Amino acid sequence: MSEAAVELIRHTPTLAPMSARAAIVVTGTEVLTGRVADSNGPWLAEQLRQLGVDVGHIVVVGDRPSELHAALDFLASTGVDLIITTGGLGPTADDLTAQVVGAAQGRASELDVALQQRIMTIIERLSARLRWNIEPTAAAAGVRKQALVPKGAEVLEPVGTAPGLVVPVADGRSGPPVVVLPGPPRELQVMWPAAVESALVRHALADRTELRQSTLRLWGTQEPELAATLRGVEGEVDELEITTCLRGGELEIVTRYGAAAEPSYQHLLRAIRIAYPKQLFSADGSTVDDQVAAFLDERGWTVATAESCTGGLLAARLTGPAGASVRVLGGVVAYSDAGKTSLLGVDHDTLGAFGAVSEQVAEELAAGARHHLNADVGVGITGIAGPGGGTGDKPVGLVHLCAASPERTLARTIRVPGSRNDVRERSVAVALHLLRELLIP
Amino acid sequence: MSEAAVELIRHTPTLAPMSARAAIVVTGTEVLTGRVADSNGPWLAEQLRQLGVDVGHIVVVGDRPSELHAALDFLASTGVDLIITTGGLGPTADDLTAQVVGAAQGRASELDVALQQRIMTIIERLSARLRWNIEPTAAAAGVRKQALVPKGAEVLEPVGTAPGLVVPVADGRSGPPVVVLPGPPRELQVMWPAAVESALVRHALADRTELRQSTLRLWGTQEPELAATLRGVEGEVDELEITTCLRGGELEIVTRYGAAAEPSYQHLLRAIRIAYPKQLFSADGSTVDDQVAAFLDERGWTVATAESCTGGLLAARLTGPAGASVRVLGGVVAYSDAGKTSLLGVDHDTLGAFGAVSEQVAEELAAGARHHLNADVGVGITGIAGPGGGTGDKPVGLVHLCAASPERTLARTIRVPGSRNDVRERSVAVALHLLRELLIP
Repeated sequence: MSEAAVELIRHTPTLAPMSARAAIVVTGTEVLTGRVADSNGPWLAEQLRQLGVDVGHIVVVGDRPSELHAALDFLASTGVDLIITTGGLGPTADDLTAQVVGAAQGRASELDVALQQRIMTIIERLSARLRWNIEPTAAAAGVRKQALVPKGAEVLEPVGTAPGLVVPVADGRSGPPVVVLPGPPRELQVMWPAAVESALVRHALADRTELRQSTLRLWGTQEPELAATLRGVEGEVDELEITTCLRGGELEIVTRYGAAAEPSYQHLLRAIRIAYPKQLFSADGSTVDDQVAAFLDERGWTVATAESCTGGLLAARLTGPAGASVRVLGGVVAYSDAGKTSLLGVDHDTLGAFGAVSEQVAEELAAGARHHLNADVGVGITGIAGPGGGTGDKPVGLVHLCAASPERTLARTIRVPGSRNDVRERSVAVALHLLRELLIP
Repeated sequence: MSEAAVELIRHTPTLAPMSARAAIVVTGTEVLTGRVADSNGPWLAEQLRQLGVDVGHIVVVGDRPSELHAALDFLASTGVDLIITTGGLGPTADDLTAQVVGAAQGRASELDVALQQRIMTIIERLSARLRWNIEPTAAAAGVRKQALVPKGAEVLEPVGTAPGLVVPVADGRSGPPVVVLPGPPRELQVMWPAAVESALVRHALADRTELRQSTLRLWGTQEPELAATLRGVEGEVDELEITTCLRGGELEIVTRYGAAAEPSYQHLLRAIRIAYPKQLFSADGSTVDDQVAAFLDERGWTVATAESCTGGLLAARLTGPAGASVRVLGGVVAYSDAGKTSLLGVDHDTLGAFGAVSEQVAEELAAGARHHLNADVGVGITGIAGPGGGTGDKPVGLVHLCAASPERTLARTIRVPGSRNDVRERSVAVALHLLRELLIP
């Protein structure tokens, strides 16, 4: 039931039917072709959800005016209250979002001379600071283009060099206003509050209602079991929009609901708690990373890693959060037997007798991480990530893990199907859950 | 010109105007809300490009039938030759893609009894192998649902449990056929060749023309400079669709063009080579990772890392490719001074005199990686990833790097703006380019 792995059970009620609705258009051939993963669409969807605004469509379009225009017309026809575009506001003549949005809203563009001056000031400051070698006339042409805005549109001040816009539909026509935001995520995110404050946007989203979202995370449960559990409460949780998905071995249940459906959500939560008393490890949105960090910090313990097949991914993940240096002393990536011995004190005899990929070596790696990095807690991982290197005895995907604290030692052996990347990623997830189990009070 | 960072210059010719066109619909609330990053849309866009089929829109919809139906109607109205959907084929009653596509194409669904039997056989085999604890009647309901297919649709055999479909528009109506594919990327990718082989799909895409794509990668160039270079060839490369984007400090120029425009592409390539003789490091699609690996392997050299602020990310990246163990011996993540000293031999006095974040320590880290892991090449990274830990003297974002081989040593100091993650990621990119510079014959 691998289809179930991605999309298992979906109740699709008409969620918060009175809520305001919005749609998002992401522009850019680099997004359409997958060279750049879009983060703006999901970021905006989440911001809108927090405002109580429901999003039904995200459309990714290339850099052709006709495609953007068609997408805007389509989304307006779905009856949404607001459309938001991202990208296409650069200084070159072919970044045409502002003009296309203007055309779709029935508004011709005109030069905003005061805006032109403000952008020019920004460019001059940037050029001086970054020592750009850019021809003044080329810069002036770009600035002029960025200061061309649809007549009657509200300007959102530039964060970089590009102004954002709120473009209402032309007088006498009906349709949602379009918020035009820059593509670079940092510019977009800094500009967002100004967009929300705009009188046009506030008016468009007046009907919004509170939309709650809760995330439950399970570890060690199969999807078909969860499907059966959810079937058991069907009819009692109809006001909830429940989506489940499997990610790195964790089963994530995300529920969205209006405030009035809180009792239904509590009912669902009870049912999950009863069915999965051990497997439900997070009901407050925390990740396993958050919990491992918190458990370590509660005890004032430090951690160190000794990785083979995961090649540093566990260390990178543990050191990801701000302030990680309080608890993470470091780690060793020991791809070679010599490294395992010299840096982590793994016994030559253990390597000889059991091989590098063995429970025994995983345990000595964990112990070595503790002792050689002087940490309270050590994690050892050794396995065969593939695609080569497997044997009948020790196939690709076989990974041994061990986590050790001053109090106890836990070990786990897994067989991960899939690619080299799958094996590495899953091993890191298992290591984090092993750490959690080791540390949980 | 940070807007330029993401989308600098775009020529938007009507690319290969005679080419077949397709659109993609990605279903799933988990994608719409950003909890799961969609990989199917970009993967399909790339497959289609290789077939000479142009993609203008990717639409992401939630799990509501009305939204999917509206998206299908819109895409059909744009005059595309083919629509492809992904996801929503699960066994539960609310995975409705097949039925909604049927409705949009004017075809009612009916039970395919032979297909039902084939899916049941798959489920029984999976249940036995994975020891699912799943109720037989629940399974049967799911299988029956998955075997409901629009009348007249072509069935693509299941890879997991979900069959794919090719659904032509109803007789007497006009519109493109819709290919319905499962959501899990592995199932979708394995099923894709069968979809392409379908007579309906072949007929729909009969007008496709060869569409070439080339990627140039630059390091050490500013976007405004590139913009000026591209302006210099304007008018001579009009048949090319050029997109540029900045990723991790590399400037990537992707050009798409019909076969007849090959001379124009060669003209562009010459112009870039002349303007950026050193900065253009890849014209054949290879990444800096590929080149570092190849240069190491040419000399038969091994590499080891000594990382502080990047916390294992460089080791993880070097060990990512299959067969990395030939050249990567491992690394040390030394977050603490004690780890730098005990595992890598960094001098107490150096740490005392210059501090952990210093050129001197970066050099000793690189040397330590070489000697303590017995590698030919060593890389050392030390810096302040933030958000805390910065001082006036050593601000957040300051990173010292050093790469050393038996022949020479290269050092670099950078100041990276942005978040903790930005600093870590950029430092890894700089380290890889430093390695490349060290190793290039």
